[in-house]
Amino acid sequence: MINDVIEPVLPHMTWLEGTLNTPAGFKAFAAEADIVPGRPDMALIWSVKPAVVSGLFTTNQVQAWPVLLTRKTVHHGLCQAIVVNAGNANAASGPQGEKDAAWIQEKIARGLSVPPLFVAVASTGVIGVSLPMDKVSVGIDKLLADWKRHSPDDAKGASEAILTTDQVPKVLAAEIDLPEGRVRLGIMAKGSGMIHPNMATMLAFVTTDADLEKPLQDTLLRHAVDRSFHRISVDGDPSTNDTVLMLANGVSHVRIETPEAVSRFQSALTHLLRQAARMIAADGEGATHLISCRVQGAASGKDAAEKARAVVRSNLVKAAVYGQDPNWGRVLAAIGTVGEPFSVDQVTITMGPMVLFQRGIPIDFDEDKASEVMSRHEVVFIVDLGQGSCVEEAWGCDLTERYVEINAHYRT
Amino acid sequence: MINDVIEPVLPHMTWLEGTLNTPAGFKAFAAEADIVPGRPDMALIWSVKPAVVSGLFTTNQVQAWPVLLTRKTVHHGLCQAIVVNAGNANAASGPQGEKDAAWIQEKIARGLSVPPLFVAVASTGVIGVSLPMDKVSVGIDKLLADWKRHSPDDAKGASEAILTTDQVPKVLAAEIDLPEGRVRLGIMAKGSGMIHPNMATMLAFVTTDADLEKPLQDTLLRHAVDRSFHRISVDGDPSTNDTVLMLANGVSHVRIETPEAVSRFQSALTHLLRQAARMIAADGEGATHLISCRVQGAASGKDAAEKARAVVRSNLVKAAVYGQDPNWGRVLAAIGTVGEPFSVDQVTITMGPMVLFQRGIPIDFDEDKASEVMSRHEVVFIVDLGQGSCVEEAWGCDLTERYVEINAHYRT
Repeated sequence: MINDVIEPVLPHMTWLEGTLNTPAGFKAFAAEADIVPGRPDMALIWSVKPAVVSGLFTTNQVQAWPVLLTRKTVHHGLCQAIVVNAGNANAASGPQGEKDAAWIQEKIARGLSVPPLFVAVASTGVIGVSLPMDKVSVGIDKLLADWKRHSPDDAKGASEAILTTDQVPKVLAAEIDLPEGRVRLGIMAKGSGMIHPNMATMLAFVTTDADLEKPLQDTLLRHAVDRSFHRISVDGDPSTNDTVLMLANGVSHVRIETPEAVSRFQSALTHLLRQAARMIAADGEGATHLISCRVQGAASGKDAAEKARAVVRSNLVKAAVYGQDPNWGRVLAAIGTVGEPFSVDQVTITMGPMVLFQRGIPIDFDEDKASEVMSRHEVVFIVDLGQGSCVEEAWGCDLTERYVEINAHYRT
Repeated sequence: MINDVIEPVLPHMTWLEGTLNTPAGFKAFAAEADIVPGRPDMALIWSVKPAVVSGLFTTNQVQAWPVLLTRKTVHHGLCQAIVVNAGNANAASGPQGEKDAAWIQEKIARGLSVPPLFVAVASTGVIGVSLPMDKVSVGIDKLLADWKRHSPDDAKGASEAILTTDQVPKVLAAEIDLPEGRVRLGIMAKGSGMIHPNMATMLAFVTTDADLEKPLQDTLLRHAVDRSFHRISVDGDPSTNDTVLMLANGVSHVRIETPEAVSRFQSALTHLLRQAARMIAADGEGATHLISCRVQGAASGKDAAEKARAVVRSNLVKAAVYGQDPNWGRVLAAIGTVGEPFSVDQVTITMGPMVLFQRGIPIDFDEDKASEVMSRHEVVFIVDLGQGSCVEEAWGCDLTERYVEINAHYRT
């Protein structure tokens, strides 16, 4: 269900079996701290040398303590380790939460013999509850003991340790051919909603062995996130803990600076994050369909993106897709709620290969064919505004009884 | 379930058993046009003399044909009849839809011997499908025949004829004591979502026998709607057909112009619409709870209203209330997604009589007591931002499996 949403690679790019540890000089592994009983729930991502770090964080005004702490590492610009826990978000946890996040950072730093600022901290899970520091401490001891003993590498375990209600880990790796040589990219991410403050959060960690200057990396990451994670919605709102971190350790000795290298690297990075974003949307809580919306013929990219997001976040569109109902009226109504004015009589809506509404006029369509199109895992709506030449996309998932069950009965 | 959401009246105000026809000089009645089989589906509201009309319409950029037509009547300023049909919204129905709406207006006007501009038209129901004009024509003939024969009055029937997925009609009437004399207000409304483009729409019709100048009435209605219908959410977005119309026919000969009369009338009108809004929210599709959120201690009313709306529209808050889970973290995360910045350590969240989060610190609470509070039909969250003195409210309903069922399987 999830891997079928991966699109073909771009030129100069090859998918690799792998994850965060595919780029040279990175290792990732997991430990059981018993915050979430019976499974790995802490992970450490390690770079053999300090890596240039870029990061983007939730826009929610309520920010978790690890987000506030890790912002300083990103601002500082170098990072050699990321420690992540599931089961507790350390958000809205009072002043003790700030001390707890700093304590984790310092303990990891001491164990790895790096400055505390070189350690990024990320958390996901229940909010409003203090971290169980005795358990966290045991988890950190295990991570550090493994690191010292045998330089472990179990990126798959790490990708599982960061999950909450996700059904499957989201990991990808790719190689990029540049005029100057080859570099690799890896990612691990988790969903399964943009806002699940009591249970989930969007986290993504990106590694590369490319050699990047921080200002360029900041720009590349922001561009890629704008076209990937900022285009998905499960609940419609950002969580308190959303974090995307990218580490570039330069171990490949391939420097990204010529226009051709920057262009290829940007395309590949965006494509990688786009696939991870699609995987997160497809694995939204209770989801049975991935919903893609492309808005084209728009006067601006901003307007196209805003309207595409409005479609994939509409409860009515989401419920209609679940019911396999080709309900284009809800798509039309959704684009009417945001962005720039448009003329309904210029709008055309298609679903997969079927035209449903053409320049303001409803089109008779074959119901059997529509059912067949909607039985596919990915349902694609294309809205042409007939105004300009800009096109942007967004992704979401359907709204199911299972989503309600999960979110009605989670805490108790 | 619905009538228990009505709050006590204000001073100078008395609830009356009644609806639209309680103010002097108004009649309302229904007919079966068979657009929705087996029940009344068209209604006519009639004033014995031309009434001053004010109106507010959907902010959706996709506007139904009757909305575009009725805007002209409101702009013109006088109205003597409103004709409403359920079962078909006459939205996104191509150029024929414009002709159909005008044809209805003209046929009613001719039958009632009033100018076409004096007739307002409103529709609700499926979008993207042409009105079945043969049936509409039969319905209009029945309405006109009844009107001519015996000056019918069946406001209850009218309130049922405008429903779609609503469980109950929403009707209220009240009397206001003014220094100059008594006037009456009546309302009928339907939900059951802010956006249900394929099946529902928010419609409200308000009558009064007060004597009002149009500019004053426009101001009074806008103020009241800002504090009532603009504060409810079932799906989070406006429909293509949302319409609020208010008719003042002056039959009481009590003119609203002194500051005291204006103030009392405004309070009563706002209170009336507020109750209708609460009834609509409580009767949202599949709802089992009314959710109220009051944001206080805000630096501005605008910010308070925006944050209150964010809480009642959050799928996660809605699902938690359904599950009777006192999940204050989702309330906190929801207010963080909109409006002005605030300090989490100044925020206090209470649910009914229970403090759950106080100035940034989670409070231990009695789970049994919380279950009892959440088993009530109305669940009230109060969020104090600790910033200023402004307070505003919003209302919504819980998100249930039944909502998903209704919206997944409606069209087919």
